[in-house]
Amino acid sequence: MEADFGRARVAVVGLGLMGGSLCAALRTRGACREVIGVARRPVTLQMARDLRFIDRGATDLAEGLRDADVVVLATPVRDILDKLAIIGPMLAPGALVMDIGSTKVAICRAMDALPAGIQPLGGHPMCGKETSGLTMADPTLYRDRVFALVPLPRTAPEALAMGRALALGVGARPLVIEAKGDAEGDGAGAQAYPAAARHDRLVAAISHLPFLLASALVEAAVATCEGDALAWELAAGGFRDTSRVAASDPTMMLDILATNRDEVLRALREARGQLDRLTRLLEEGDLEALRTAMETTRNRRREILP
Amino acid sequence: MEADFGRARVAVVGLGLMGGSLCAALRTRGACREVIGVARRPVTLQMARDLRFIDRGATDLAEGLRDADVVVLATPVRDILDKLAIIGPMLAPGALVMDIGSTKVAICRAMDALPAGIQPLGGHPMCGKETSGLTMADPTLYRDRVFALVPLPRTAPEALAMGRALALGVGARPLVIEAKGDAEGDGAGAQAYPAAARHDRLVAAISHLPFLLASALVEAAVATCEGDALAWELAAGGFRDTSRVAASDPTMMLDILATNRDEVLRALREARGQLDRLTRLLEEGDLEALRTAMETTRNRRREILP
Repeated sequence: MEADFGRARVAVVGLGLMGGSLCAALRTRGACREVIGVARRPVTLQMARDLRFIDRGATDLAEGLRDADVVVLATPVRDILDKLAIIGPMLAPGALVMDIGSTKVAICRAMDALPAGIQPLGGHPMCGKETSGLTMADPTLYRDRVFALVPLPRTAPEALAMGRALALGVGARPLVIEAKGDAEGDGAGAQAYPAAARHDRLVAAISHLPFLLASALVEAAVATCEGDALAWELAAGGFRDTSRVAASDPTMMLDILATNRDEVLRALREARGQLDRLTRLLEEGDLEALRTAMETTRNRRREILP
Repeated sequence: MEADFGRARVAVVGLGLMGGSLCAALRTRGACREVIGVARRPVTLQMARDLRFIDRGATDLAEGLRDADVVVLATPVRDILDKLAIIGPMLAPGALVMDIGSTKVAICRAMDALPAGIQPLGGHPMCGKETSGLTMADPTLYRDRVFALVPLPRTAPEALAMGRALALGVGARPLVIEAKGDAEGDGAGAQAYPAAARHDRLVAAISHLPFLLASALVEAAVATCEGDALAWELAAGGFRDTSRVAASDPTMMLDILATNRDEVLRALREARGQLDRLTRLLEEGDLEALRTAMETTRNRRREILP
């Protein structure tokens, strides 16, 4: 594997919003030697070339990966899993295989089945939009955003360094997720891939749960308002912000929920418990307890996101 | 009552974020003849004068209201109710009494007990911040925001026109909430104050429920992450936006929940039903139904807030 990212050929598989923006950032910033786009449809590759987001493209996966030093899988999570199952024989010896999917245990497990000479590294850039597709791609999407890097036990330090260089190359802030010292084995994932398990638990709370609560808000508001469209004229920044992520891409979100089911269900149970607690205090008219709960929550919100 | 807002003396009772910003907007934009600030503490009045947000001030309620053509109550909802119970004898004949509280049935009922010569009008500007106090006041807070006007059955057209002029005077967009033609009487509030009842149901869905869901999110995320502070480094725009209103002022929110209890509980039940439905689909692994639900919600979100 190239030790120098600047001299690497980088193949990006999947040219949607995230993959397209990754190519655009790498190319605009001259971060690597060559950007190879891999997409199913020739028209997508043509558009990516016209936008100068890629140097060359391939509709054939094997052709696109053949001489890549770094491969980035940028499709929905279950498609990443499908591709990991077949790309082993297509990869150049010593290649680094990364992904930018939003869950990590299932992906790290699939990465671990790659041939011994391949370096695997999980990735998760903490950015996105409520739009999808190459036409919405943006070379600044990753700029100043956290780019989580999730190593497997077999990931070599040089591979991790290359992953860091890629994150920096798109303008992001690399953040390596390490196995927690006190990680308890509460599942095969946590035991075999502790960094990935830690990642998946945290994103269930700070990313997947917000999506589900925003979705519940939209549907509950529609039901409560019983077709009174005046509601949406009244709706201000609070509703807009709290419901925004409900418009996320369903295909992407479905794969995320399907591959992080246990952690998402755990976060959902916590949320339901909190809602039930607030409902009970209001039903009982225990306003002093309600005030205390609200003050505690406000202080927590200010503490965790100053 | 003055038919011309430009010649009115306006007394604003309560110089916190909302009342202070109202004074600042009226004064900066030269919208009325005089802005009288009423606050408990002399130091607040001094600050408001120093900031040139008011022309004069009073710590004594009767003194502040004595010659006001328009009175705007800008304290938390339960304090507005307390003040409405005592200001009747303090008001100039023909005065317009408004408020900017976030719930309307309880306030309209209290307004209806004002002397016959007084004109009452409910108000609710759809703006705010997660900060409070006069030091955070901002003359542009109301600019281009919807300012809901909620008439009582006894509110005269001239009084409503004056309310519109005040909303325009602070740069907001007045939106009159009318009684729905098909309003069903499902409570004393809905029967006597149908516009207020319509308002309270809608804001339970688009304002009070988002606050409760954001609060549940913060607490559930903290519980799920079990003290792993890496979560907050990973937290991106989705968590930030979905949880933002959880930092709202507890005193203000407590009064809102206490005076809109039935509608808020109804919205909470809807939200819980939606969360339970999503949880069940995920538990059962019914991914096709989950996809359909997510697509429906995304389309709804795009439709109601384009």
